Amino acid sequence: MTINANDPNRKSWLNVDKNSDFPIQNIPFGVFITQEDIITIGTRIGDYAIDLSALQMLGYFKGIDLTDDVFLQDSLNDFIAAGKKTWRAVRNRVAEIFDSNNNTLQNNTKHREAVIFSIASVEMQLPIIIGDYTDFYSSKEHATNVGMMFRDPDNALLPNWLHIPVGYHGRSSTVIPSGVSIKRPNGQTLPKGEKTPVFGPSQRIDFELETGFITTDVNLFGEAIPVDQAEDHIFGMVLLNDWSARDIQTWEYVPLGPFLAKNFATAISPWVVTLDALEPYRVASPVQEPTPLPYLQQTGDKSFDIHLEVYVQPKDSESTLVSTSNFKYLYWTMSQQLAHHTINGCKVNSGDLMGSGTISGPVESSYGSMLELSWAGQKPLTMKDGSTRTFIQDYDTVIMKGYCDNNQVRIGFGEVSNMLLPANQLF
Amino acid sequence: MTINANDPNRKSWLNVDKNSDFPIQNIPFGVFITQEDIITIGTRIGDYAIDLSALQMLGYFKGIDLTDDVFLQDSLNDFIAAGKKTWRAVRNRVAEIFDSNNNTLQNNTKHREAVIFSIASVEMQLPIIIGDYTDFYSSKEHATNVGMMFRDPDNALLPNWLHIPVGYHGRSSTVIPSGVSIKRPNGQTLPKGEKTPVFGPSQRIDFELETGFITTDVNLFGEAIPVDQAEDHIFGMVLLNDWSARDIQTWEYVPLGPFLAKNFATAISPWVVTLDALEPYRVASPVQEPTPLPYLQQTGDKSFDIHLEVYVQPKDSESTLVSTSNFKYLYWTMSQQLAHHTINGCKVNSGDLMGSGTISGPVESSYGSMLELSWAGQKPLTMKDGSTRTFIQDYDTVIMKGYCDNNQVRIGFGEVSNMLLPANQLF
Repeated sequence: MTINANDPNRKSWLNVDKNSDFPIQNIPFGVFITQEDIITIGTRIGDYAIDLSALQMLGYFKGIDLTDDVFLQDSLNDFIAAGKKTWRAVRNRVAEIFDSNNNTLQNNTKHREAVIFSIASVEMQLPIIIGDYTDFYSSKEHATNVGMMFRDPDNALLPNWLHIPVGYHGRSSTVIPSGVSIKRPNGQTLPKGEKTPVFGPSQRIDFELETGFITTDVNLFGEAIPVDQAEDHIFGMVLLNDWSARDIQTWEYVPLGPFLAKNFATAISPWVVTLDALEPYRVASPVQEPTPLPYLQQTGDKSFDIHLEVYVQPKDSESTLVSTSNFKYLYWTMSQQLAHHTINGCKVNSGDLMGSGTISGPVESSYGSMLELSWAGQKPLTMKDGSTRTFIQDYDTVIMKGYCDNNQVRIGFGEVSNMLLPANQLF
Repeated sequence: MTINANDPNRKSWLNVDKNSDFPIQNIPFGVFITQEDIITIGTRIGDYAIDLSALQMLGYFKGIDLTDDVFLQDSLNDFIAAGKKTWRAVRNRVAEIFDSNNNTLQNNTKHREAVIFSIASVEMQLPIIIGDYTDFYSSKEHATNVGMMFRDPDNALLPNWLHIPVGYHGRSSTVIPSGVSIKRPNGQTLPKGEKTPVFGPSQRIDFELETGFITTDVNLFGEAIPVDQAEDHIFGMVLLNDWSARDIQTWEYVPLGPFLAKNFATAISPWVVTLDALEPYRVASPVQEPTPLPYLQQTGDKSFDIHLEVYVQPKDSESTLVSTSNFKYLYWTMSQQLAHHTINGCKVNSGDLMGSGTISGPVESSYGSMLELSWAGQKPLTMKDGSTRTFIQDYDTVIMKGYCDNNQVRIGFGEVSNMLLPANQLF
């Protein structure tokens, strides 16, 4: 049986709610711990977590060239490093195993019990041991908004912005999965009108609505990845919340960029959705004027129509939708980001994480940060419980969701959800 | 036998030249490959490489709590993670084994042959698998010089500089050991007076004379390392050349800091010299005025008197000394850097690398980069072969050396030496 894993007409013999992010056409990859304390690589269909190491041990991946323990890992790194051909073959095979026309596993109770878990019974882990984390700044609307607020409203975009997919290095050690709580960071800030900084908890904690892509295969030290081959080096995507402390950032960022304002936490959703699964949702990226330099010129639809939402949930209260945006608004594509990142020979490893930068859209309700939504604190947002927010408060949970929907199939990312806790008491 | 590993009167039964960086008082740690293709953690005395895994297998570390394969590794990470107590015990034991008053190993020919190699016969490796690499900007003289050249000569230091040990995240994947050649990076630059960038090989390749420290033990996500405990989390130091492309940097660095201008290569010396070995060379750091915020206030001598040199060697020619500096000129100490880095709860792992920033001294001959030495290209340096340099040319080798010397014992780092190769031809 050969299957088109993306075929919209396919169904699984597992029950999948029609609004689920995880129909049989998705088949993302992640890492989870079972109630028996086994850590494994898995996938998800509907509300079922599927243990790929168990499937392998039971012989379901026969014919695919895999090492014995490729799924019995605490990260996707080795699996990803095996290359696109391998993980594509695994995704296609999983699609076959759970197809409604294939009852081999369905009819084997013992196998089913070893392979399939309720999603509520497993604990999702960080899917990748991230070698290097890079964050880009690729939304024209976001860069313009920030420029208007902090620099010159008439020249909001800096001169390099339309030529370079501007990016900077982030901190790998504090990339955390959905569900882990974050402490409000302490740090230096400069009170308005003062010349001497003060120390204390940041007063301007913000989210940044982003996606991230995870690299596969590698280039050699000193070699560039051409823009038209870049997608072959992208395994898949996650939702990413680039937690930020705006007051720390304002004081520290000149001249070497953000540091402590960003490196206290970066949160990602636990399921990596492959570029293969996103294929039906390709769209053109925005027209680029001026035309970029040749090493950044691409053809074809290199963006994806991914609907994005941010919710803020006060403690013991319901959540409020504060932003609705879309990945397709990004000016620079992932291909251009990766081509730019390596044009100087910078080595990229399997399992590196690259953030998109805040994804703001053209209208106010699509802005991807509290900084923009509250316009630097001038316009508070009202929550459903009547309270207001300019930035994130202690015990607030920030929830980001994302999905594609072409009226045939919905492919989603689940969510990245993290609560902000009060700062440590220091001094 | 209990020994003070730093005792200046001690000698080894191995022959050590009086100008060697590696007397028995040093005992640095590194990773090398033998001619039999065995990769191991080792140390160095004089011109001898010492295989620590062989010493362990032969029983020389009896009584020290070590796992069986702690030295049979391709990096120091696990050994470092074991904590200060462990690596200090190993260093002291090595001091005993090679002490001139201890002839156990000396008299065992078979053991000696398994343990001791000529340094020329082994190939040094990158000593650490670096999780995260951070680079600071802690030389007041360097920050002032750069500010004078590129910003306002009358306000050369930015307002935050005297309050914050300014730092930024670098790229771990392109940290390379001494000996690996580097290709001149391609990239975007903005020609003088133009508004549109051009693409091509950087024309302003520079070195930056730095040291780096490597962390040991870890803090927890969300917890700070207090400044007075910071040294307990520092394993040792290396020489570091932060290769830079100044023309790419000028065009790209606003507002998020250096990216492709730095991430094509960062080179380090292969032997990690422990803070224990540097103990006799402690000196006070510069007086800090204004007094930093409490979380950065320290007492005692937190700097080290480390003499530093940079040589440029044109192809097939002799090398020219272009800079003589000293680690003690740094305004911010390693303790302050680490305390600052974690004050927001940023997690540091064992085996992270933190660069000092360019170490420029007070006089012209002590400037730590070609940018400063040639004052942005206006004052060419003359090499011994009569050629001149404003920046680094293809096939030049940049060599950095560093050592401490108190007229009793010289403790050195060896060198970090890398050649610049021509750029890839693209487009």
